[in-house]
This record gives sequence, structure tokens and C-alpha cells, in this order.
Amino acid sequence: MIQQTWAYMNENRPRFLRELQEFLRFPSVSAQDAHRADLRACAEWLREHLAGLGLEAGLIEGAGHPVVVGRAAGRSGGRLIIYGHYDVQPPEPLDQWVSPPFEPTVRDGFLYARGASDDKGQLFAHLKAVEAVLRTQATLPCEVLFLIEGEEECGGTVLPDYLRREKEALQADLIGVVVSDSDLPAENVPAITYGLRGIVSLEVAVTGPARDLHSGAFGGAVGNPAWALSRMLSGCLGADGRVLIPGFYDDVRPLAPWELPNLEAAGHDDAAWAAELGVPRLHGEAGQTTLARIWARPTFEVNGMVGGYIGQGGKTIIPASASAKITLRLVPDQQPAQVAARAGRHLRALCPDFVRCEVKQLFLAEPLLFDVNTPLLQAGRAALGEGFGRPSVYTRCGGSIPVVEAFWRELGRPVLLMGLGLNNDGAHGPNERFKLDHFFNGMKASAALIDKLDTLVKG
Amino acid sequence: MIQQTWAYMNENRPRFLRELQEFLRFPSVSAQDAHRADLRACAEWLREHLAGLGLEAGLIEGAGHPVVVGRAAGRSGGRLIIYGHYDVQPPEPLDQWVSPPFEPTVRDGFLYARGASDDKGQLFAHLKAVEAVLRTQATLPCEVLFLIEGEEECGGTVLPDYLRREKEALQADLIGVVVSDSDLPAENVPAITYGLRGIVSLEVAVTGPARDLHSGAFGGAVGNPAWALSRMLSGCLGADGRVLIPGFYDDVRPLAPWELPNLEAAGHDDAAWAAELGVPRLHGEAGQTTLARIWARPTFEVNGMVGGYIGQGGKTIIPASASAKITLRLVPDQQPAQVAARAGRHLRALCPDFVRCEVKQLFLAEPLLFDVNTPLLQAGRAALGEGFGRPSVYTRCGGSIPVVEAFWRELGRPVLLMGLGLNNDGAHGPNERFKLDHFFNGMKASAALIDKLDTLVKG
Repeated sequence: MIQQTWAYMNENRPRFLRELQEFLRFPSVSAQDAHRADLRACAEWLREHLAGLGLEAGLIEGAGHPVVVGRAAGRSGGRLIIYGHYDVQPPEPLDQWVSPPFEPTVRDGFLYARGASDDKGQLFAHLKAVEAVLRTQATLPCEVLFLIEGEEECGGTVLPDYLRREKEALQADLIGVVVSDSDLPAENVPAITYGLRGIVSLEVAVTGPARDLHSGAFGGAVGNPAWALSRMLSGCLGADGRVLIPGFYDDVRPLAPWELPNLEAAGHDDAAWAAELGVPRLHGEAGQTTLARIWARPTFEVNGMVGGYIGQGGKTIIPASASAKITLRLVPDQQPAQVAARAGRHLRALCPDFVRCEVKQLFLAEPLLFDVNTPLLQAGRAALGEGFGRPSVYTRCGGSIPVVEAFWRELGRPVLLMGLGLNNDGAHGPNERFKLDHFFNGMKASAALIDKLDTLVKG
Repeated sequence: MIQQTWAYMNENRPRFLRELQEFLRFPSVSAQDAHRADLRACAEWLREHLAGLGLEAGLIEGAGHPVVVGRAAGRSGGRLIIYGHYDVQPPEPLDQWVSPPFEPTVRDGFLYARGASDDKGQLFAHLKAVEAVLRTQATLPCEVLFLIEGEEECGGTVLPDYLRREKEALQADLIGVVVSDSDLPAENVPAITYGLRGIVSLEVAVTGPARDLHSGAFGGAVGNPAWALSRMLSGCLGADGRVLIPGFYDDVRPLAPWELPNLEAAGHDDAAWAAELGVPRLHGEAGQTTLARIWARPTFEVNGMVGGYIGQGGKTIIPASASAKITLRLVPDQQPAQVAARAGRHLRALCPDFVRCEVKQLFLAEPLLFDVNTPLLQAGRAALGEGFGRPSVYTRCGGSIPVVEAFWRELGRPVLLMGLGLNNDGAHGPNERFKLDHFFNGMKASAALIDKLDTLVKG
């Protein structure tokens, strides 16, 4: 059976790629108000595409961008939810893209476009797997329910609200949830991801004088908000890579004895990474390996900062204000609300009294760890092995997928993290790309997983 | 004689104001390449205006924006140079202007426009004084030579090159140079400024990864350039307002015993200043008064900084780079080149080895102190007293006027700093303005000074 399905996929490869390119042309940037209509158009396109595959498709409306729903009935009573998101990160800085972010272009076995890897390409592999199974096997073993949101990159509430509202209906017969919105540890190395870092996203605004001041007329007598902000940011992280927020490490759970050797089995080369990223050397928390730093240790990051004159040439001012965007990545058992409060307190304590500061929470997400021994995770691991033609390993993920937390919290069923990206896909930077092999092998793995749902429903 | 000249001024006030408004409509922003043609148009307008007054007018060309020259012959052999600049600071942030920066508007006795105070308005007072003297007295006591540059705000070389080239011709019979490009200590309090701070302007660029990285996929393992920059900036200045660059204070000359009491006579109220500027309190070097901090102590200022994502919402990245613009204000006997070298060395030493940094010098200027007992400075002090109708005091200036240094270095004659602005004119910020009383009283003072040139030439 699965061989026929895979054969169908091979025959339709060029069309699948063309369809994904069509999907990627929508500039569905959820963090920027100007793209509201683009998100709507993208959601409509997706709804029509699901309907065209024979699914019962619709939009769930809410305060933000709609969730696209597609339901394919099954032969027996179980249900698998497949999650994805059609919104993308802002494409800036635009001048660094080799081909424009919303004109998908194939180069050297990769498809380049904003959203190619995060998450339109990964999601689309599942859509095409369902199409292939339906066309070659007529029905699915159990119901597959696509929930595709438009607010992953901006922390919206439409999907979480829906999960809370429809909790009971969704939970009935639910096997679990599949999420493909993360990375493989290396090219063509399949892996099951059983942990995600949480996140606290903050914005810090420092205000000084009511207007920019001439630094000759006032310099020396009026405190500088940009310097104050730099002092505050500097005081959150030590030169040894340790976060200086009091109590920050109190609740950090160390890696279990089985984990580190298994995680390191994914393979990693610090020097190759440094060379590929263009940095003099890697840097992080003292006494930790690179993979532990990314997967199992919390962080403090400045995502952006701005203050004063940033145009061409010089401008001799004391700026009126300065601000920064900060994220803290969290690991079990850190509590986002508590960390956010501690970070806010620490930043305010560091703020000199000659300026004012405000710390705003943008969004939070819990860190998560799933039991690798649940049937869904084991089935997923086997399916990935078949799709990629080699055994899959275990990894954790340094990123935060707040919706996974929402699924876990509201539905209480295991979440299978079946990442198809690569950490050098440039997911949040310029020249984002998606490896075409991962697109097609991921599609095969998705079909193999659907094939195994029979056993899970019966078992 | 002077009474007739002043009467002419009173009659022509409305026209003088209209002409100044015309001058202010040119967006002559020298730091921004896009305004090159506007600077040219402004220079042409000024040349024609000088020619219309009966002066021999022309443009001096060079690598940058032209210098406008206007020469009025005198009855005897002396020569006074009057300096000004027709270029202005960038008008950003535009959304904070009550009326547009290049649409001059009168409100409450002030004329609002970019360049109103710095320096078009101050310069124009001298132009109209020469017009009034010529129209009421037919000739000037000695030659007056206007040198009006277009590169004061961007550190250009056309005027300094000209001074060096024409040194001997300019020095012949030269009484001195008048520069009105600074402030009175308070509204309608005339003052002679006998000192200027110098400046070192630097740009610091920190580069990390070759592209913005996803802070989930890489956070914790790759150093953050924005944090590195904040650490470097923070490490240049202590919480006590003392600059931490090694050797920075080595050559700072303390105030002479006569100076502080005379300077404080200008009057100053810290609480009123803080309220007017909108800051919780003033802040500066420990153990110094506000006026000493501004006029007689050196500083470290962050003029602007930027790195990573600064748009709406959040973006979870490790930025590829971050940069800052820095100025250091200097006092006698600090050497700009030496301070720049020390600052660069200190910044590089503070730069973590997981990123790269580059420190670029934008421009430098020497700090200056003039002998208050020279005849020109004493004549200027008397003239200002007459123009404003009250005795003038002594001040120093916290700003840097590189061209004053060039005049002093090349021509070796005293420079009379006859500021007509106010430190709350918003010279480098939004809503720049110029007090109309200062415009007209400054004009009267300029005519009174020209009247006294007879004595200086004979004496």
C-alpha cells in the first residue's frame, strides 16, 4: 500500500513543488499590520486547496488571523490532529536576500523563500501526504484534522481560544497531535524531537529628556538613555554566558543521564558551525556543550535595540529614548510568568534613576518535555526512519512553539514533533530555504505514519 | 549714527523676518547625500542675497558643499571676518515636529524651523546689520568679509582648505573673526563666550554571525552582537558619570580661580532645567556643578545605536550586527587624536572575542580657550550690552565649532563668539526655534560692533 502512495508522490513531484511555490508567494507576515489582507488571502487559498483535496474545509475566526481547518474522515474512530502555520516572520533586512523573499526560487536542491522552512514547506509535506494516501488508498485509517494557524509568529490567541472552546469535541478519540515546525539535526538525519524550550518575550523602553538634546549644550549634565539601556542589557548576562537575573537558574532541570549521550549522537562540530555562521568562535554558558546550550539550557538574547540617530553620518545628540526587544529561552521546570517578573524586576533595578523605564511582556510560552515511549512518538520515529531511509535519532529543540504547549495543556495527548527543517535554513533571517529532499522524504514519512494509525487505533 | 541704523532695523523688521523664513525653507541637510542639490540651491540664494546688499559675492568650490563669500569694502584698512553656516542638522524624527521643519512658523515670539537657531538665524542677524549700516552710513569702517560654509554639521573640508590656501591674504590687516553659532546663558542675557569644547566622533560596528539567526535554533551557543555592543558602551562610562577610558582625564585643565564664580553668574537652576527637559533629575560627573559639567568637563555620549529587529512586534533573532555612534566632548588640554586613539583601544579591549568590532573616526575638533582681554572680545562684550540693553556676562560653550579651531589655527587672530541662541532652542532635535528678540537685539549688537571697528583699526 505505502509503495503505491510513494509512487504517486514521485509522479507528482513537479506539481507539488509548484503548489508550494504558490503558497509561499503570499507575504503573510503576521507581526506587521500592513499584511493583514495578505494573511486573509493566504488563509482563503489554503482553505480552497484543502477543499480541492476532498477535505471538509473552513476558517475559524477570532480577534486575529483565522485558523484554517481541514477534516478528512477515517475508516475507524481515532483522530490525528496535524498542526501547521501559514504566517511567516518579517522578511527584513530585504537587501540581504539573493532572490526576493516572496518569489520562491530553487537553487542547489533548496527552495528559497520566506516561510519555505518555517512553516509552509513543512506543513505542505503533510497536506500532500494526505492527498497521496486519499488518491491511492481512497480512505484514511482514522480521521485526520488539519489545524493551520496564522498567528504563530506573533503570539495570537485564535487557535488557543478554539482549543479551549472545543476541548471536549477535539479530545474524543484523539490519538495525538503532529507538529512539523522544527529541525532535523543534520541533512537527511531523521529525528524525533521530545523537548521544546519555552520563551519570555519582553520590550524595554528607556526614556530620558522630552526631546533629543544637543550633546554640546547638554552633554555631561543630562543622563543618556541609550547608555542607560546598554548598561541594563549588559547587566543581564555575564561574560561567562551565565544569565545574571537573580533566581534565573533555580528551577532548571538538569539533563537525565540517558539524554546527553543520545542527544550528542545527533552529531555536532563546533568548528564547522563557527565557520558556517561566520563567527570567530561559538560562545555560550560556561561548562556546557553546544547541543546542551541550545536544547537544555536557558538564555538571554537581545533581538534588537534602537535609540537616537541611526542615519548616515553623525548627529551630536543625547537621544530622548532608547528601546530593546529581548527574549529569554526557558527549559523545564522554569515558569515563564515567574521568569518574566524576575527579568522585569532585574531590568528596573538596573535602570539608573535619571531616566525612566518600562518593561512590557510581548508573549510567553512554557518549556515542554514529552515521554519518548508513548505509541505515537514511537510510530512517528519508525515512520521517519522509513521516509528518510535511515534510523531516526532523538533530539530536543531550542525553539519555542507556544501552540505545542497549548495542545498539551488543553488536550492532554502526546505531541509528535516531526521537524523537517535545518538550523541553517535561515528561518528568521534573510534567504530562508527548505531542502527539497526533506520536503519529499517528509511527505513519505507522513504517509507512513498515517499508514500506522490503524495499529494505534486498534492498540 | 548707530541710532539711525537701529531705526532702519526697526522699520524693516517684517521684511527681515520674511527673508529669514525664505532662507530657512531650504532643507540644507549636509549629513545626507540626498540633499546635495538643496545645499547648492541654498548657497546660490545666499550669494544672490549678499550681492543684492551690494557686497562682492561668490562661491568657493571644493570637494563638498561650497562656501559662500561676501565682501564689503571699508573706509580704512582693517578687516573683520564674520562666519556662519547655511547647512543644518537632519530633521528626524519628523513626527515630533509641531510645524514641519522646513516651513518656518512664528509662535509666541519664536521662529520655528530646522536651522532657525543653528545657524541660519544667528548668521542672518549679521547680514542684516551690515545691510542696515550700509543703507544708513553708506560705508563700513573697515572691510567685512562673510565666510558662510555648508559643511559645519558634517565636518567638511572646503572652508578649512580655503583658510589654509588663502592664509596670507586673509591674515593681512585682520582684526579677528566673529562667530555667532552658540547660546546666550538665558533669555535676553547677553554674553561673550571665550571657550569651546572639542569633540571626537566615532562609529562602532560590531559583527557576529553572517546573517540574523533564529534565537531558538542558535540561542545560547552563538554570541549576541547587540549584547556585546551594550557591554562595550556600558564599559565606557561609570554610574558616577566618570568616563572609564584609561587616561581620559590626564590632560583636563581645571577651571582657573576667576572662572567658576563668573560662569555661575550667568545663573542656573537645576530643578527648573530638569522640569523643562522632562527628566527625573539632572545627572553628570560626580562632584561638579551643572555649568562646569557642560562648559569645562569632558563627556562620553551615545548619539545613537541600532542592531537587529526594531520594527513592530517581536522577532526572535540573534542579530548579525549592531552599531553605535559616539561623541566625546573634550576640554583643554585634551588632544582629540589621542583621545580618539584611547577610546578606540578601550572599545576594542571591551569587545568580546566571539564577535568582531571596528571603530571608525568620523570627525575631531580641538577644545579652545580665548583670552577675554583682547580688544575684539572687549568690544564685542560692550556691543552686546548695547544691543540687548543690559551688561553682558562671560560664558563658555559646551558645543564644538570645529571651524573656530580652524580660524584660530590658520589665522592666529582672536575669535569673538557672539552666540544668539538658547540651549532650549532644540538646535539638534525636533522643533528647533530662534527667539525673535535675539534676532533683532543681535542685529543691533552686530551693528554696534561694526561701529566700534573704527577704534580697533586705529587702536
